[in-house]
Amino acid sequence: MGMIGGGIGSFIGDVHRKAAALDGMIELVCGAFSSSPEKSIASGKDFYLPEERCYKDYQEMIAKEKMLPEDQRMNFVAIVTPNHMHFAPAKLALENGFHVVCDKPMTLTLEEAIELEKIVTKSGLLFALTHNYTGHPLVKQAKAMVANGDLGNIRKIQVHYLQGWLSTSVEKTGHKQATWRVDPSKSGIGGALGDIGTHAKNLVEYITSLKIEELAADLGRFGEDRVLDDDGNLLLRMENGAKGTMSFSQIALGEENNLSIKVYGEKGSLEWRQENPNQLITHWLKEPQKIFTPNGNDLYPEALNSSRIPAGHPEGYLEAFATIYKNFAIHLMAVLTNKTIEKPDYPTVYDGIRGMKFIYAAVESDKNNATWTKF
Amino acid sequence: MGMIGGGIGSFIGDVHRKAAALDGMIELVCGAFSSSPEKSIASGKDFYLPEERCYKDYQEMIAKEKMLPEDQRMNFVAIVTPNHMHFAPAKLALENGFHVVCDKPMTLTLEEAIELEKIVTKSGLLFALTHNYTGHPLVKQAKAMVANGDLGNIRKIQVHYLQGWLSTSVEKTGHKQATWRVDPSKSGIGGALGDIGTHAKNLVEYITSLKIEELAADLGRFGEDRVLDDDGNLLLRMENGAKGTMSFSQIALGEENNLSIKVYGEKGSLEWRQENPNQLITHWLKEPQKIFTPNGNDLYPEALNSSRIPAGHPEGYLEAFATIYKNFAIHLMAVLTNKTIEKPDYPTVYDGIRGMKFIYAAVESDKNNATWTKF
Amino acid sequence: MGMIGGGIGSFIGDVHRKAAALDGMIELVCGAFSSSPEKSIASGKDFYLPEERCYKDYQEMIAKEKMLPEDQRMNFVAIVTPNHMHFAPAKLALENGFHVVCDKPMTLTLEEAIELEKIVTKSGLLFALTHNYTGHPLVKQAKAMVANGDLGNIRKIQVHYLQGWLSTSVEKTGHKQATWRVDPSKSGIGGALGDIGTHAKNLVEYITSLKIEELAADLGRFGEDRVLDDDGNLLLRMENGAKGTMSFSQIALGEENNLSIKVYGEKGSLEWRQENPNQLITHWLKEPQKIFTPNGNDLYPEALNSSRIPAGHPEGYLEAFATIYKNFAIHLMAVLTNKTIEKPDYPTVYDGIRGMKFIYAAVESDKNNATWTKF
Amino acid sequence: MGMIGGGIGSFIGDVHRKAAALDGMIELVCGAFSSSPEKSIASGKDFYLPEERCYKDYQEMIAKEKMLPEDQRMNFVAIVTPNHMHFAPAKLALENGFHVVCDKPMTLTLEEAIELEKIVTKSGLLFALTHNYTGHPLVKQAKAMVANGDLGNIRKIQVHYLQGWLSTSVEKTGHKQATWRVDPSKSGIGGALGDIGTHAKNLVEYITSLKIEELAADLGRFGEDRVLDDDGNLLLRMENGAKGTMSFSQIALGEENNLSIKVYGEKGSLEWRQENPNQLITHWLKEPQKIFTPNGNDLYPEALNSSRIPAGHPEGYLEAFATIYKNFAIHLMAVLTNKTIEKPDYPTVYDGIRGMKFIYAAVESDKNNATWTKF
Repeated sequence: MGMIGGGIGSFIGDVHRKAAALDGMIELVCGAFSSSPEKSIASGKDFYLPEERCYKDYQEMIAKEKMLPEDQRMNFVAIVTPNHMHFAPAKLALENGFHVVCDKPMTLTLEEAIELEKIVTKSGLLFALTHNYTGHPLVKQAKAMVANGDLGNIRKIQVHYLQGWLSTSVEKTGHKQATWRVDPSKSGIGGALGDIGTHAKNLVEYITSLKIEELAADLGRFGEDRVLDDDGNLLLRMENGAKGTMSFSQIALGEENNLSIKVYGEKGSLEWRQENPNQLITHWLKEPQKIFTPNGNDLYPEALNSSRIPAGHPEGYLEAFATIYKNFAIHLMAVLTNKTIEKPDYPTVYDGIRGMKFIYAAVESDKNNATWTKF
Repeated sequence: MGMIGGGIGSFIGDVHRKAAALDGMIELVCGAFSSSPEKSIASGKDFYLPEERCYKDYQEMIAKEKMLPEDQRMNFVAIVTPNHMHFAPAKLALENGFHVVCDKPMTLTLEEAIELEKIVTKSGLLFALTHNYTGHPLVKQAKAMVANGDLGNIRKIQVHYLQGWLSTSVEKTGHKQATWRVDPSKSGIGGALGDIGTHAKNLVEYITSLKIEELAADLGRFGEDRVLDDDGNLLLRMENGAKGTMSFSQIALGEENNLSIKVYGEKGSLEWRQENPNQLITHWLKEPQKIFTPNGNDLYPEALNSSRIPAGHPEGYLEAFATIYKNFAIHLMAVLTNKTIEKPDYPTVYDGIRGMKFIYAAVESDKNNATWTKF
Repeated sequence: MGMIGGGIGSFIGDVHRKAAALDGMIELVCGAFSSSPEKSIASGKDFYLPEERCYKDYQEMIAKEKMLPEDQRMNFVAIVTPNHMHFAPAKLALENGFHVVCDKPMTLTLEEAIELEKIVTKSGLLFALTHNYTGHPLVKQAKAMVANGDLGNIRKIQVHYLQGWLSTSVEKTGHKQATWRVDPSKSGIGGALGDIGTHAKNLVEYITSLKIEELAADLGRFGEDRVLDDDGNLLLRMENGAKGTMSFSQIALGEENNLSIKVYGEKGSLEWRQENPNQLITHWLKEPQKIFTPNGNDLYPEALNSSRIPAGHPEGYLEAFATIYKNFAIHLMAVLTNKTIEKPDYPTVYDGIRGMKFIYAAVESDKNNATWTKF
Repeated sequence: MGMIGGGIGSFIGDVHRKAAALDGMIELVCGAFSSSPEKSIASGKDFYLPEERCYKDYQEMIAKEKMLPEDQRMNFVAIVTPNHMHFAPAKLALENGFHVVCDKPMTLTLEEAIELEKIVTKSGLLFALTHNYTGHPLVKQAKAMVANGDLGNIRKIQVHYLQGWLSTSVEKTGHKQATWRVDPSKSGIGGALGDIGTHAKNLVEYITSLKIEELAADLGRFGEDRVLDDDGNLLLRMENGAKGTMSFSQIALGEENNLSIKVYGEKGSLEWRQENPNQLITHWLKEPQKIFTPNGNDLYPEALNSSRIPAGHPEGYLEAFATIYKNFAIHLMAVLTNKTIEKPDYPTVYDGIRGMKFIYAAVESDKNNATWTKF
């Protein structure tokens, strides 16, 4: 793995490195960790890389790695830069034969996303998008329960993703994570919408295997001088007639990373909360509440296969993130050895496009005073 | 207290009797408990009333009680019938000089509500509406916190009231509670909207002291053959610019009585859940989460005055309901002894009108495909 | 009901009155509410009693009530005084033909308890001891589950009853509840042991239908100058070979009223917590955790019969307390009408003796450096 | 890192590998993964090791690695075998100049433990014992709170470590983890006592910085034919006069990995639960309950330094385990570069001896019918 972005002090770069390392299948071999060549090289050394593979920019990295013998060069790049710096390195990597893991939202604009899909398809290479929350064992259990019809026809969905870290104007105090996220030239047309709303959307569609057909969005800009949304409330209508609400926010003071979802069907219902991801709360007609745990009783194989340790030993954010990498690595190793695998299980460029369409639909709906908007 | 409706087997009649009895301030002295005279009288006996004060209908009750000496007759009536039977007995009681406690929603139609307000005003008598959830100590704490500015300007609200008991077509199996609730001639134009949505609305406005300015409502009718809503998702905009979502449902399978609210301000936030009402979860800038308990530390007088027992001894639904009756009784005793009290603390006819307007606004918005509707 | 003790400002007197009133089956008709005649009479008036039935002491009350016609006099007395004032009024009431409800621990000494049992037996009258926590619907469910063998043979028990209100020397600041509880002449030989340890013991034996065979007790006296225990840690051995721990404390700073029990059998296990009494957490071999709720699914009749309101509407401390009174009243009404009932369901004088023996055994064990002591 | 034990299918070997890999500071370079040479080599290949560094036994590994140039050989061994196979490889490694990370309990017997301490001291090498639960950020916060006097003098402790996986006789069905744990020749004189009781003991002493002075232990052997304990209940007395209970079990049916501790002081109290390790529940005199979260507000540096990701992103079992490895690696790198560090923060051989003494004291106390036993 070669990394683009994610130098010293980066939150998400560190997450990607740890997640990739956890299962012992992926090794960080090189990187272009910063737009500053000095910082890039210093970061690489700090990550115990040999100096010759600490590159000053991603162009250099891709060019030089390509020149290495096949069994020595990196197999794929991990792109962990702000949104406006996803497309160009992804394109260059793919065009030079490197597979790609990319953070979300996939691109700055929908146009870039559509273009990227074409490039991926043409290249025949692998592309993973790190919608990390789909890596949790109990999210996979939830998806399997719905897919197997345990809940019956889905009627109602509630999802929210609430954070409070933008409650005050931290972007005016030099807060690095905040600064680029409130800047449309780096974030795109969505603020919290793109940053966390896309996770909420992805989780809904992943668990229910249903597409959101239309939405009505009321976005908020509560922070002083913010041009991008920092809050949003949405009505949802699913393709099967189910209805729901979505709420996301980065001004929900006191919330840390509260991504939660409830799905109600005709025969059962379920609830999952990211902040305590080791419980899946379910209800069934005429039965007491049942709570499932990772590696616990009565789970589907999809959930069992995603747990690393016995029940009662909590796995968390990094483990779920690592599962995206692990599943990508399994697929990649198959490809590298000319094997095929049945069902690669990680988000792809198609999820990325769908996420960008969601951003565009929500922004359009909001401009039209929360009119129903299909996407 | 004389009771209208609420005979043997009635859920809410029993609740009103227990709530009224709890604090030893109110005595049930007579009743017209059923539209069937026989059942009314049998019920009264079952409730240990003397036969002569078990009336065959409310007209008889009001007429005969009025003829009793002032110190023997009932002081007020409690109306606990289905919605379509609120207006007529309330009107008759008020016009004959009896104060009124009435279940919610206040009337079958908005017209009745407006008419009732006039009657109440003209009579100079007391009228309480049993929005019982406002009786919880920690709901009063929440209201006081917002009123005292502890949370700062309110930005975001999430409220839901989720039940699952209409997930299946129980109204087709003779389920008494269900049958009238899905019948527009008895319920009015709102189904779950009137039954529980009004509680959610009332809780929002009670805690925040802010009015909902406009709403966009998407109502669902998931049960077979249902003409009234059994589910609803709403966007909210408050008079101060705050935004929010409301979701209510009676087809949220597995939910028992999940009324929950979150309020986020610029300086703090709070969360309260009816199913575990003895915790008020709060967050404050740069502080760890704090959880308040009834009769616990650091509470406002409004909360302390509403608790009956020491911290750690859970109070529940009946106690909160009883607080409505207790505060009504305090006011009534003042009136009966020609005293005044500073701030009567129970919902009144104005809350009833506001609830009916909410129902009408939501139904109108839903008809217009969730267009923003003021009320 | 005539009340002995429990005047204005008393915590437990108020609890008894509310609990007795809740179900509309019991009426407070007279009282001797204080050792001060003035305070007794003032209290009675405050509770809306006619002056002639506000007595200056319990001797007067029992004497005068006895002289009233049978259909007008009180049927039973409720004794809600500190421990040292239980025996004498109970004896006098029973000897004058009045049934008795008495707070716990039953008496000041074991000798009194044994004597009281004889008096009760001789009188043929009813005697209820208010081990109120056994009134919770889910405690009855737990008992029924064990009794029906659902858990299999019981192997392990954990129970604790933790409070923190004696963490500081509040008894030195005139705190009324504290003052008598730390005084052996009023409390007896047990401090926290008698006040709350007896509740924990009773809960264990009630739920498991097993007797504690022997115990090893290590009592603590952490508060300055305290001669009675304010903390205790015990090992338990049950008559069937099960083992367990008990911990109680009134110096567990921050704890409000944390009575919790876990019972593990060969086939299942359960957990119940008084502070959120509306959940019974269970586990079963090879099944996910199941949580039962009052009036919820799959309950035994014993639990269903003890709930007053639908699932999701929390019942609390007062409701459980009221269930003791309700079941006593049902038995009393049967007796008064010469009927019999199958299984009266409330704690009796035998539970009271067992509680006193527990206190004595724990104190003896503690004196012997936590030697195993049978009782 | 070279690994001893932990071949394919081993639970704890996999945990050690992932924990060591997470922070990118440690690389698995060789191993002797099984007592079967074939299995050892197959395992090594499965872990992507070059064949020449997959050794057939640990003697070979130590001998051959020692012959490699210093900058190529392993720096330390990780011993993840059953208890009876800890001492010999640790001794051999230390005597050949390799640092050691060892799983707990440290050795089979107390004699071995004492001998090992001497070897470690003589060698001047690092020795880490993986009491992994001390790696949690909020456990470090708890320790820091007590150390800084925030809780005042400690009075009461409750700790339990409850599992249910030995509820049935799984050792008779070939369950690998169970088989050696119930066998005294592999486990030592403690069963659950050694396996999990030692964790509970270590957590108590780590958080409170107080030694357990004496204990009274009542051990259970509930599983058919078990000669080692599978359950234990203990009274504790701490060196400062605090008292407490400990309960551990592997027959607590339904429990997964429920390690929980409560510590009560004169000024505050705290509670931590391994199954939801991202909350530290605290109480303070006259304040509402406060809940701390990793990387949340108001934490001590010790806690902040142990979190990897922002608040609200749960870290779990593997992360805490990884913190032991990380802190060991930090110390090791200092040693390798001739630097010193201020306070190495990981459990050492002294914790290992203390754990063995605890096992011996508890077994002795149990033999003497739970007599107080010092250690």
